[in-house]
Formats: sequence, structure tokens, C-alpha cells
Amino acid sequence: MSAPIRFNVCARDGAARTGLLSTPHGEISTPAFMPVGTRGTVKAMAPDELRALGYEMVLANAYHLAVRPGAELVRELGGVHRFMGWQGAVLTDSGGFQAMSLAKINSIDENGICFRSHLDGQRLVLTPESAIEIQEQIGADIMMALDECTAYPAEPARARSSLELTARWAERSLKARRSGNQALFGIVQGGVYPELRRLSAGQITSLAFDGYAVGGLAVGEPKPRMLETAALSAELLPAEKPRYLMGVGTPDDIVAAIGMGYDMFDCVLPTRNARNGSAFTSEGKISIKQARYTRDGSPLDPRCDCRGCRTFSRAYLRHLYLAGEILAARALTEHNLNFYGRLVRSARAAIASGTFNVFSSGVMSAASANEEASDGVKNDVV
Amino acid sequence: MSAPIRFNVCARDGAARTGLLSTPHGEISTPAFMPVGTRGTVKAMAPDELRALGYEMVLANAYHLAVRPGAELVRELGGVHRFMGWQGAVLTDSGGFQAMSLAKINSIDENGICFRSHLDGQRLVLTPESAIEIQEQIGADIMMALDECTAYPAEPARARSSLELTARWAERSLKARRSGNQALFGIVQGGVYPELRRLSAGQITSLAFDGYAVGGLAVGEPKPRMLETAALSAELLPAEKPRYLMGVGTPDDIVAAIGMGYDMFDCVLPTRNARNGSAFTSEGKISIKQARYTRDGSPLDPRCDCRGCRTFSRAYLRHLYLAGEILAARALTEHNLNFYGRLVRSARAAIASGTFNVFSSGVMSAASANEEASDGVKNDVV
Repeated sequence: MSAPIRFNVCARDGAARTGLLSTPHGEISTPAFMPVGTRGTVKAMAPDELRALGYEMVLANAYHLAVRPGAELVRELGGVHRFMGWQGAVLTDSGGFQAMSLAKINSIDENGICFRSHLDGQRLVLTPESAIEIQEQIGADIMMALDECTAYPAEPARARSSLELTARWAERSLKARRSGNQALFGIVQGGVYPELRRLSAGQITSLAFDGYAVGGLAVGEPKPRMLETAALSAELLPAEKPRYLMGVGTPDDIVAAIGMGYDMFDCVLPTRNARNGSAFTSEGKISIKQARYTRDGSPLDPRCDCRGCRTFSRAYLRHLYLAGEILAARALTEHNLNFYGRLVRSARAAIASGTFNVFSSGVMSAASANEEASDGVKNDVV
Repeated sequence: MSAPIRFNVCARDGAARTGLLSTPHGEISTPAFMPVGTRGTVKAMAPDELRALGYEMVLANAYHLAVRPGAELVRELGGVHRFMGWQGAVLTDSGGFQAMSLAKINSIDENGICFRSHLDGQRLVLTPESAIEIQEQIGADIMMALDECTAYPAEPARARSSLELTARWAERSLKARRSGNQALFGIVQGGVYPELRRLSAGQITSLAFDGYAVGGLAVGEPKPRMLETAALSAELLPAEKPRYLMGVGTPDDIVAAIGMGYDMFDCVLPTRNARNGSAFTSEGKISIKQARYTRDGSPLDPRCDCRGCRTFSRAYLRHLYLAGEILAARALTEHNLNFYGRLVRSARAAIASGTFNVFSSGVMSAASANEEASDGVKNDVV
């Protein structure tokens, strides 16, 4: 049985690297940002538009698709790619995080997570085995092992028992796998404790996953702790496999993590912020609802080439946003995803040309300048 | 001063005709359907998508744009075309209908319509003169004179006083016009009374408008009365000017009205129904939320070439609709507008080839067959 995915590092610049991830649904240039398509659609976007922005892989959520329309139905309709009309690759999150955070009356034990659907209260159990079965029905190119996402703050003892459970679930996930053309990633936990991250990474990387993810970050911990823990964790993952930093994050956090050697990212920021009227621009974040844009005939970002920036003024987008028009969500989502797409493309080019440090410094100083000049928009953290 | 628009009839087939309407923002092939872009956006659509579906003119609403963001602001930002990022033509409704139906605490007298904004309660007065001023600021290619849209039912005396007021307002509208490159259409009222329609048409067509509209239909009257009144009214309008049947309607009503000699149409049905999960197809209307589509892997309409029908199954669209996803509104809106666009294109081709009767019979018998086989979706009438 040939490996479901292959990963080749193409260029290195310090710890940062570019690579090519070959999946049953095409090749993905890394570092890659995956737009979040929780329910089998990246909110407000059509699949051909994602492709036009340069995206090659999107994320969907096994919990959400299992609750509605049902994983079996997705399988019956030809799998998630055909279901979504998306010709690129798909990674599914196992749904453990959502089962704990969204579902009603949940409890967790050795077996798995018991919960009631957030939609209809139906009683469901997510185990390492059922999470794999669901993801095999959905048909993602990359599946994620069920983990317990350790909350922040967590006492060391709690973080330790959580990572130990995650390790036992990881073994069960690998054993449960049936499909030969779907990759499976394991997830490292350990909270913000370096020794626990080392312990978890040792356990998870001793198992034959196709790639390794770092979870339990960007869940409320201070940013310096997140960055320290992410940096430490990256070093603990094997260099020849793809490294996925889950749920991170802001543009500068992503660039920082690329500098640590991560290859894959997902975050709701570009899409969720867009629907809240917030745009990432080369001059910092813009909250389009602000009165200062009432008569502003300039585009969101004069340096952006997205459809909205070629067509619409800030004043028009503000009007659309205040009127609750769908086109506001569309234009801002497309713009923000174009921003994130350009960011990782630029990072790849900088790594390839050995100028990643210069690129990274530029992004970081722009981020801190924008922080100061910020119009007061706070990140709507995942 | 050259005329702001020119209208040339190209071919006739019975009373039906094709024509070319030349505006400052391009030529429009008639009969034409104008998608409704009330607040300066056709809901869920981007301007380039409307163009790709073959649309050359859209409708915007002067009342809505005057209330928000303000007609003066639209002018300041370069006019409605630039504001919307729309390179085709724009027709603005005067807003009289909305001032009466949407606004709070309204009253009507000889001077105009007093109302409070439905958004913030601000007191506003819409007079024939201010309606022209607003539309000139907005910058539409075609403006509509302020009329009193006679409600249904209305006693003959009420319908008569209403059409008389509309005629006096029509004169005032023409006198108020300042702009030389914006056309102005007058509106015939008269309820469902043939003698009053004759009276109103005589009054309005005696005034030098650039085109003539029939208003006060599709406001609740039985369909046969609507069709009879529309047919009578069409005959009362000069053949050399464009004829606009306002707010109509279903695909079969539009084809019937084309057969009466109307050239222009607008209706919220394709866009509003789409957002309610209802699609027009070659096999009749489909309500995508129905359980029968849960496992249906076929496209909305196998005979449709829109992006959604090339990409998405009914089962996926049902999932998106039930999940409240924006892509459901997008895909169904694009589909329905493609359906309406194809309908008027086919009508134009049939007229040009002298086969309009055959085409019309086909549409009508399909409509009645679909009525019988209907899945119970009722038209969400304007």
C-alpha cells in the first residue's frame, strides 16, 4: 500500500522550509494556509473563487458534517470533494474540539466524548474509532486523530492526564484506520508546559502518523506563551513529515510559526473577521463600519488586487455592511483570503530565495506599527 | 440637447417586439429583465456575475438609497454606477411605493408623501421634485416619476383620484428635471378599471416622457385581472417608446406581457425566492429545503448551465440552505437569475425568428403542467 500523501521539502531558510505535499487531490505548496470550511463550505465563498485565490486545500469539520448532513450521506454523494464541488484537497478536523465546546451536556472518559448535538439534542458518542470512521466516510485527504484539546488554563496534572489520554486515543485511531488513500495526522498536546509538550511529542511521534499537528494553542493563553510553546513543539516534530499548527492565527503569528518550521495552518480569522466587517490590509486592520469610511472612495487596500479592491470603495462596502447585504460578507471574505493567500505565497518565495528573515522582520514591524496605529479593532480570536 | 436614451424596435412578431435601448451606460436588448438591486446591490450577487449572466441593466431604489447611504453621498462617490461597481445601465424607482409601504407614519397629500424613515424614524418628504432631485443625484440612466401606486382593492373613485394625482405629479416631475443625460419615464395608474387605465394613459402619454411604465399591477389583484389590465394598458402606450411593466413577475407572466408588447420588466421573485430556498427550473419550481432532496445527487436543473448547476447537487444545496450558509443564497440567486436571463433571451430569439407564439405556448403549457406537478411552493409575490 503506497502512502496516501507524500511530503518533500524543497527549500530551507533557517528553520523555515517550503515543501510540496502530494495528496490524492493535488499538490499543495507549503507553507500553506487552509481556509476553514466547517460545514463543507468556506463561508461566503464559491469553490472556484478559492481556487482562483491560489488555495489548494481547505479544512472541513467532521463533527459538523456528521451532525448535519451526516457522514454517511456525504459518502453516498461521492465524498466531501464532490459534495462541496471542490477539486482541491480537504483536511478534516476530528471534531473533538467542537464536541467539547459546542455540544450540550458533554462528558469525556476513556472511551471518548459523549455529547448531545448542538442542533437537535441527539445523543452521540465520538470515540477515536468513530472519529476515524466518520472521516473515512467524509473522505478527506487528511484526517486528524481524535484528541482532547487541553483548555487554558490547566493545572500541570490536568494537562498531563489530558495528553496521556490523547496518546492512547492516537494509538486507537491508527488501529481503527481502514482507508488506504487517506492520511492520518496525530496531535501533540501538553498545554503551555515545556516538559509536557516534550512528553506528548515523544509519545505521538513514536506512532506512524503521516504528519504531526500541534494542538491546544490559541485557546486563550497569552501570545508570548503561545509562540514559545509553538516554537518548542516544532523542534520536537520530525523534519521529514508535515507539521501543522492548528488554529493559528493572525498574519504575524503565521509568519512567526513559518519561521519555526511549520508547514500548515488554519484559522477562522480571515473569514469570521470579514463577516464582522473587519479587513486585513497592507496598512493594518480596517473596521469597515467606522464612520471615518462614510465618504472614503478608495479601495479597502490600494495594494490588493482582489475583485473587491478592483471594484468597490470603502464607502460602498461600509454601506453594504451596515445594510446587512451578503455582498459585504462576500467582498470582505474574498479580500481577507486573498491577503492570507498572498502572505503564505510571499513567505514561500522568501524562503526559496533565502530572504525569509528580511520578509519576516518586515511583517513583524508592520504588525507592531499597525498595532499602534490600529483603529481599535480587536482580533476576534478563534 | 440630445435625448438621454434612444429606443429602436428591431423585430416584431404580433404585438411582441425586440428592440435596442441605448443608454449612457450601454445598449440593452429588449425585452429585458432587470434584476432588483434595491440598496445598490442585487442581493448575493457581484456585478461581474450579473454581467456574465447577460444582464445589461439593473434596478435600484431611490427611497432606499436616499435613506441610506444618502443620495448626495452616492453623487459625491461618482454616481450609482461607480458606487455599485456596475458598468451597465441603472434604472431607479422613485421610491413612492416604498415610502408608502415600508415607512412609518406616512401621509400623502397634493404636495407629496410625508413619512418617517423605516431605519431611524427621521421625518422625510418625497415630492415629485425631490424624487427627481434624488434620482439625479443617484445618477440613474432612467428615472421614474413619483406616482401614487393605487392599492388593490380600490373603489373606482379612489383609483380615479389616485391617477389624477399621479398625472399632476408627472407634470411636476418633468418640470423638475435638470439633468440632460438621464431619461425619465411616466407611470400609468388606474387600478383594474379599463376606463381609468384609458384615462391615465391618455394623461401620461400626452407628456413628453422618454418611456412609459404601467404601475399598480401585481399588488394583490387576481392574475386574470392583472393580465387583462396589462394587455389593455400596453395598447394605450406609444409604440415608438419603451414600455415597462413594473413589478411583474413570474416567468409565464413575463412571457405573456412580452406578447402584449412590453419591453422592460423587474421583479424580486428570482432573487427573493432564491433566498427562501426556491429555484425556478425547466421542470418547475423546486423548494430545496424539502426532504425529498436529501439524497438527490442531481443538479437543480439538468438543463441549466449556471455555476451552481455545473458544480453542486440538490443534496448539497439543501444542506447549505438548512445550515443558513451564504453559498445557498448565492447559488440559488445566480441560478434563478440565469433562468430569467435565458427566458428573455429565448423570447428575443423567438420574436426575431417569428416564432414567438410557439415559444409562448411552450412556456405557458410548461407553467400549467408545473402548476399541477408543483411541489407546493407558492410564489412569494412582490
